[in-house]
Amino acid sequence: MGFSEIEYGVTDRIATVTLKRPDRLNAFTFTMRGELIEAFDLADADDDVRAVVVTGAGRAFCAGADLGGGGGTFKGRAWGETVDGVPRDGGGTVALRIARSLKPVIAAINGPAVGVGVTMTLPMDVRLASETARFGFVFARRGIVTEAASSWFLPRIVGISKAMEWAVTGRVFSAAEALEGRLVSRVCPADELLPAAYELAREIADNTSAVSVAAIRRLMWSGLSASSPWEAHAADSRLMAELGGAPDTVEGVTAFLEKRRPDFPMRVSSDLPPGVPSWPDDPYGV
Amino acid sequence: MGFSEIEYGVTDRIATVTLKRPDRLNAFTFTMRGELIEAFDLADADDDVRAVVVTGAGRAFCAGADLGGGGGTFKGRAWGETVDGVPRDGGGTVALRIARSLKPVIAAINGPAVGVGVTMTLPMDVRLASETARFGFVFARRGIVTEAASSWFLPRIVGISKAMEWAVTGRVFSAAEALEGRLVSRVCPADELLPAAYELAREIADNTSAVSVAAIRRLMWSGLSASSPWEAHAADSRLMAELGGAPDTVEGVTAFLEKRRPDFPMRVSSDLPPGVPSWPDDPYGV
Amino acid sequence: MGFSEIEYGVTDRIATVTLKRPDRLNAFTFTMRGELIEAFDLADADDDVRAVVVTGAGRAFCAGADLGGGGGTFKGRAWGETVDGVPRDGGGTVALRIARSLKPVIAAINGPAVGVGVTMTLPMDVRLASETARFGFVFARRGIVTEAASSWFLPRIVGISKAMEWAVTGRVFSAAEALEGRLVSRVCPADELLPAAYELAREIADNTSAVSVAAIRRLMWSGLSASSPWEAHAADSRLMAELGGAPDTVEGVTAFLEKRRPDFPMRVSSDLPPGVPSWPDDPYGV
Repeated sequence: MGFSEIEYGVTDRIATVTLKRPDRLNAFTFTMRGELIEAFDLADADDDVRAVVVTGAGRAFCAGADLGGGGGTFKGRAWGETVDGVPRDGGGTVALRIARSLKPVIAAINGPAVGVGVTMTLPMDVRLASETARFGFVFARRGIVTEAASSWFLPRIVGISKAMEWAVTGRVFSAAEALEGRLVSRVCPADELLPAAYELAREIADNTSAVSVAAIRRLMWSGLSASSPWEAHAADSRLMAELGGAPDTVEGVTAFLEKRRPDFPMRVSSDLPPGVPSWPDDPYGV
Repeated sequence: MGFSEIEYGVTDRIATVTLKRPDRLNAFTFTMRGELIEAFDLADADDDVRAVVVTGAGRAFCAGADLGGGGGTFKGRAWGETVDGVPRDGGGTVALRIARSLKPVIAAINGPAVGVGVTMTLPMDVRLASETARFGFVFARRGIVTEAASSWFLPRIVGISKAMEWAVTGRVFSAAEALEGRLVSRVCPADELLPAAYELAREIADNTSAVSVAAIRRLMWSGLSASSPWEAHAADSRLMAELGGAPDTVEGVTAFLEKRRPDFPMRVSSDLPPGVPSWPDDPYGV
Repeated sequence: MGFSEIEYGVTDRIATVTLKRPDRLNAFTFTMRGELIEAFDLADADDDVRAVVVTGAGRAFCAGADLGGGGGTFKGRAWGETVDGVPRDGGGTVALRIARSLKPVIAAINGPAVGVGVTMTLPMDVRLASETARFGFVFARRGIVTEAASSWFLPRIVGISKAMEWAVTGRVFSAAEALEGRLVSRVCPADELLPAAYELAREIADNTSAVSVAAIRRLMWSGLSASSPWEAHAADSRLMAELGGAPDTVEGVTAFLEKRRPDFPMRVSSDLPPGVPSWPDDPYGV
């Protein structure tokens, strides 16, 4: 695909995105940022992709922003995309792209995930961690702030108190503490991590309607943003009307009644009903 | 009461709503939908009801929408209530009615609770489960979407990550997984489930002001919808002013100081202070 | 400082606020309300304060509102600050002041924390409890409502279901139940409580940028209020631009690369970047 800092491949309807700068603990760069966004564009456009697994090459998941620029690393970054006149936070562009994904995303966190290395995983659906993973929202120790829209995502995953504790101490913590605090849903021995991630991806690929999953993913993020359940109810009602007689629903119900595995005919690329919320509407056009 | 698919009764100031189609695992129908809404109207209007327990007859709680219509079950449902020109999602009308309840609601989930069978419980205050309960947000396996405003409720109960995991896999899971993921607050042996539900209902009935509980229930849902704590503060301030010298408050404080059980004189039907938030304002007039 | 119902002191860059009416189990009064707000004003204005620990003198943390006024305790409280024409809820003025704190706040809950005694801790960052602590959102048992904007804070800490259960029963519960329900992040033997609180405060003071911590605290509360992650992204982007080349960031990154403890030069009193959200904007001018 012409990627230089990540690897992207599809096998058995599951895409794998591998952060691939192992000599730098897969530290995040401007190049990696663009390649990640492009990888999620590929996954969304490919009907053969039913789920995405994200992991890191070598012993780290992602050590955070590459600090090769020394003390000036975060200074005066000027690139084309801006918000309110300032350059967009790079980690945020990745996180928001993942939040908009039409395919479910599973993080297989195989080692340290620090700074943007952990905040980029927050919009993923499920985070699995190896026993060797470590985590850190270390921003306060570097003089910067929680980025990648993590002030929005993190409290909605772990609750505001745990989010505040991790963010104001900036401490690096173990996979066990991440599990206890519900940042990850499971901790596995290192050699069982990828198999567990693929098993979960396969459960999705083999049993669900791709159109349903895409619609549900958007509904759920929209619902989390909605100021009242009435918004969710209006969106539900429209989608139930649009999908009620659609081929996937007929097949899903029939297969269930016949106690067989469903074979859903609809495709995300062409058959997404118009009622699927466009959330989040990217006001910056990306 | 003339109900055909549920049973409704009041004993010792606790109402019990029983889903009653045991030969169909209490599968949800259009009739059941209307009867559930009517039952909650009865409970709200009856000052003798201090709490509501919802359970299922036979071995299931509710197996979800009745699929007796086969592949066409969800097709072209046309009934009077609409939202934005489409028929309202039926499960949502029940869920939103329960959310507006003036009485606290306890789910005693005695067996499988799948599809609308579990989403209807999300606006209830406490969910207790039997060891024989199973749960499933199975919508993606049927080609439809998470309904009953569950995209709003579920992430606010279990966090967005667990909500996404259950919704995009559509898998059926055990009571133990539900407890671990905080979907239910307790798992009991089957024969201890209803006693536990009634013990909790009794704790409320014997110790609290009905007016306080109704006001708190509305405040809490409003607070969860509010965009800032300032809205909650304004509502609190008004209610504290309205209730500060009211008979229930005088009795509540006096009984506490005299170390006796309170005997609250105020009634929900006539004494709800005007500051109680009307949340959620049903824009569809139900 | 001229305080009569609390004690305030600063040692080793950590402020301690002690509720000090031990003969009344530190019951909350109008005087205590004002002194607490003043103490947080002092802490925010003092660059030597990096974190605040709040605890109670004697065997209680805070038994709630002082009920010395008997049945009339909550009646006709008239004081200058109003909202929508009614007196502001006093507990709410404290809770919202703590939410706006520029310094992280750690509750060391050494004994009973009931009514406003627990709701005042909800906007604190971390709650640690002694094994002897007990908790109660007892409002429904007194005929009043959940105050101090707790209908906003509590469901965002423990989820809506646990919040409802505690609020509608009004029951007093143990430190173990508080831990299980995630109201507190740790339970310690009584004599280890204050050391644990100070260790956490020290972790913050020794390793983080005060400006980062203040900015993160505001970002996180703002993010929790934001209706979409795009608002968080805009705020992040601005703060990353403002802080990217700032002295604390240069020092934070350099110290990390040199594997030494950072010595951050910036001060909260003078160097807070303009992009720090002003959340929450107090519409009542306090």
